[in-house]
Amino acid sequence: MATLRVHNATMLTMCDGAEPIHGAELVSVDGVIEYVGPERDQPGDGFDEQIDAGGAVLLPGLVNAHTHLAMTLLRGFADDMPLQEWLTEKIWPTEAGLVEEDVYWGTLLGILEMLRAGVTCYNDMYHYPGAGVRAAIDGGIRALPSGVLLQFVDERRDVSSATEFALQTRETSPERIVPMLGPHAPYSCTPEMLTEVAEAALEHGFSIHIHLSETVNEVEQVEQQTGMKPVAYLEKLGVLNAHVTAAHCVHLDDGEIAVLAERGVGIAHCPTSNMKLASGFARVPDMLERGAIVGLGTDGASSNNRLDLLGEARMAALIHKGYAGDPRVVNARQALEMATIGAARAIGLQETIGSLEVGKRADFTLVSMAEAHNQPLHNLCSQLIYAAEAGDVVLTAVDGVVLYERGAYPHLDAERIIARANESAMRLTRS
Amino acid sequence: MATLRVHNATMLTMCDGAEPIHGAELVSVDGVIEYVGPERDQPGDGFDEQIDAGGAVLLPGLVNAHTHLAMTLLRGFADDMPLQEWLTEKIWPTEAGLVEEDVYWGTLLGILEMLRAGVTCYNDMYHYPGAGVRAAIDGGIRALPSGVLLQFVDERRDVSSATEFALQTRETSPERIVPMLGPHAPYSCTPEMLTEVAEAALEHGFSIHIHLSETVNEVEQVEQQTGMKPVAYLEKLGVLNAHVTAAHCVHLDDGEIAVLAERGVGIAHCPTSNMKLASGFARVPDMLERGAIVGLGTDGASSNNRLDLLGEARMAALIHKGYAGDPRVVNARQALEMATIGAARAIGLQETIGSLEVGKRADFTLVSMAEAHNQPLHNLCSQLIYAAEAGDVVLTAVDGVVLYERGAYPHLDAERIIARANESAMRLTRS
Repeated sequence: MATLRVHNATMLTMCDGAEPIHGAELVSVDGVIEYVGPERDQPGDGFDEQIDAGGAVLLPGLVNAHTHLAMTLLRGFADDMPLQEWLTEKIWPTEAGLVEEDVYWGTLLGILEMLRAGVTCYNDMYHYPGAGVRAAIDGGIRALPSGVLLQFVDERRDVSSATEFALQTRETSPERIVPMLGPHAPYSCTPEMLTEVAEAALEHGFSIHIHLSETVNEVEQVEQQTGMKPVAYLEKLGVLNAHVTAAHCVHLDDGEIAVLAERGVGIAHCPTSNMKLASGFARVPDMLERGAIVGLGTDGASSNNRLDLLGEARMAALIHKGYAGDPRVVNARQALEMATIGAARAIGLQETIGSLEVGKRADFTLVSMAEAHNQPLHNLCSQLIYAAEAGDVVLTAVDGVVLYERGAYPHLDAERIIARANESAMRLTRS
Repeated sequence: MATLRVHNATMLTMCDGAEPIHGAELVSVDGVIEYVGPERDQPGDGFDEQIDAGGAVLLPGLVNAHTHLAMTLLRGFADDMPLQEWLTEKIWPTEAGLVEEDVYWGTLLGILEMLRAGVTCYNDMYHYPGAGVRAAIDGGIRALPSGVLLQFVDERRDVSSATEFALQTRETSPERIVPMLGPHAPYSCTPEMLTEVAEAALEHGFSIHIHLSETVNEVEQVEQQTGMKPVAYLEKLGVLNAHVTAAHCVHLDDGEIAVLAERGVGIAHCPTSNMKLASGFARVPDMLERGAIVGLGTDGASSNNRLDLLGEARMAALIHKGYAGDPRVVNARQALEMATIGAARAIGLQETIGSLEVGKRADFTLVSMAEAHNQPLHNLCSQLIYAAEAGDVVLTAVDGVVLYERGAYPHLDAERIIARANESAMRLTRS
């Protein structure tokens, strides 16, 4: 029995309406939260590990609802370019050279970055998912891996092998690895493939991770090919009968937002990527108002170029105000919810993570408010969203195990990971 | 004679078209740059101080072209609110309680934050500018202070006393303190006041720091009252005959952008503040295309809530792509220019700072690229804008004097400043 106590914290549980608790304590037993609330225990009470938070903010671990993690290898490799040129001239030709080990080291590099930023769980869609799973297991982090099912590129895998992979991964991995099925998008998969994915998801209880209506062009393409809006098309194919996490959702009409809200589809909003690739402004204020489930994602590091959920929350809180002409939309609390419990809901793990509650996994992070840029502290949510930065994270733990603490990774060889990821990146991009 | 050598750096001078120099060195003598280029000198060459950059990126100090620095005291005090309610119910009533010492400590708090973020110069407009000047002098930083000349609040100062203050400040302060005249905005000053400011600026060689066309409402107000667009109005009053730094410039038409470009007006673009207060999207791609001078500003910490120029540059690079629907606008290089030489031009100090060149002041910062989130490094400009964060700054110097190094401020008592600023903030906001 492994026991952990975190005390002397300012706790934001992210439970509905909960106010910050000062002088708070969290106790976990074998990775499960057993107590959250005002300080209760004593230093001498015989915990295996005790952490004095020094007044730092104790938050549920941040959840990244959409990424392509090993794309860290291409961070900064091709920026400020039109989407199609970026994909066809830079990203896809380079990715064609990927081997398993690249994905392994690229994924671990992303894990280092996310742990430093307080992220404890990520929803990943990428090639060589087996290597991604190995990296997540070795990295100690919570992950929802899926391969990419794409119709129009030389794809290595079909739905049945993807299902086989997901089954095997579930069978052989720790519980914190939750495989999903990853059909790329409505425009890039055949209807047969999408139907097959839906059936497999329902049969085996997998969630589906898919891109949805990221660009105007793809929406038009789906409409031309099917006579339907993308959401109606997915509904017709039965995809929405399974649990779905839909990334981007930039170009939705009112009816589509209503359907996603009603069917409990998790929307992974990726504001930075949407800006950087000029995809547009997702209708997040409308989504929230209509009760849709919205979480935040970073997308891959080649279209962001960070894996920083606090930064993503800040971005969401800012751009929608400017675009709506209304400074009240996406307030700080809502933005923080989208980075925690909202994202957990969006990926279907709201019973396990996303808030600090007895019975949930002990995934948490500590954020220091001590430096000048976080002072004075009038309002904790505002400070976390508008003032704090990834570098303020001082500790990150998954399943009650500390994976990051003040620049150090107790269970990972950061230097080696960075070196190996660099080798892969340089080999891939050598022209 | 004080000599300083920085070596083992990757240098971006930010001179036009200059590529990064690896293994670079900078030498300063009495605060003036005497050499920049490939490593030339030896450790034993008898410099008073030598800094091994350890491969970090050596940049000109970042320049904050528009802020109200002591508003750090109200960071997070009132967010997610409509502009008028925010101003009239929260900010102005609270500011009415300000005393000199509040401004002194609030300004120093902002200086701590900016030094940590690589910012070496700021253009400030606030109440009790004498206290602001004292803080800038004590803080060792470069500053362009001005009081606020406002018609419609109980104002403490008129144009002649503001001019007197600027003259006296110039006379008695170190050269790095460059006073300006600060009429608040076209809609909030009488035409007589603006004319008087223009005359004083021309007579004494002061620049003018003014807000311009931040919101749709104020533009309409000026049009109603004067029959002119704000830029034409300022031109008619003679204001543009002086050097002007115009903050925000969100709502300009083509003709106004052309006039600002032609008259060499420095535009201080504040993207985060414009989003947070829902003011709108300044036409930065058009401004750059037409050759206008554009630098970046943070605005005050109660409408941002950071004083982080790298973050501001990232914001500028991202939101304009999303808004224009074109991922090529405001590229990484342009964004970095707006945070350095562009901002220096915008405040009229391009002969003194903004790039690393022989004869300019030795204001610089070192940014570490060593951590996972800055790896691999395919493109230095992209990395600085899209991947790096304020916390990656490891050292900041003004006039060749190191003011910040890895969390420490050699010449400032950060703990005391934070404590005193907190006392002020809590007294001001006690309801």
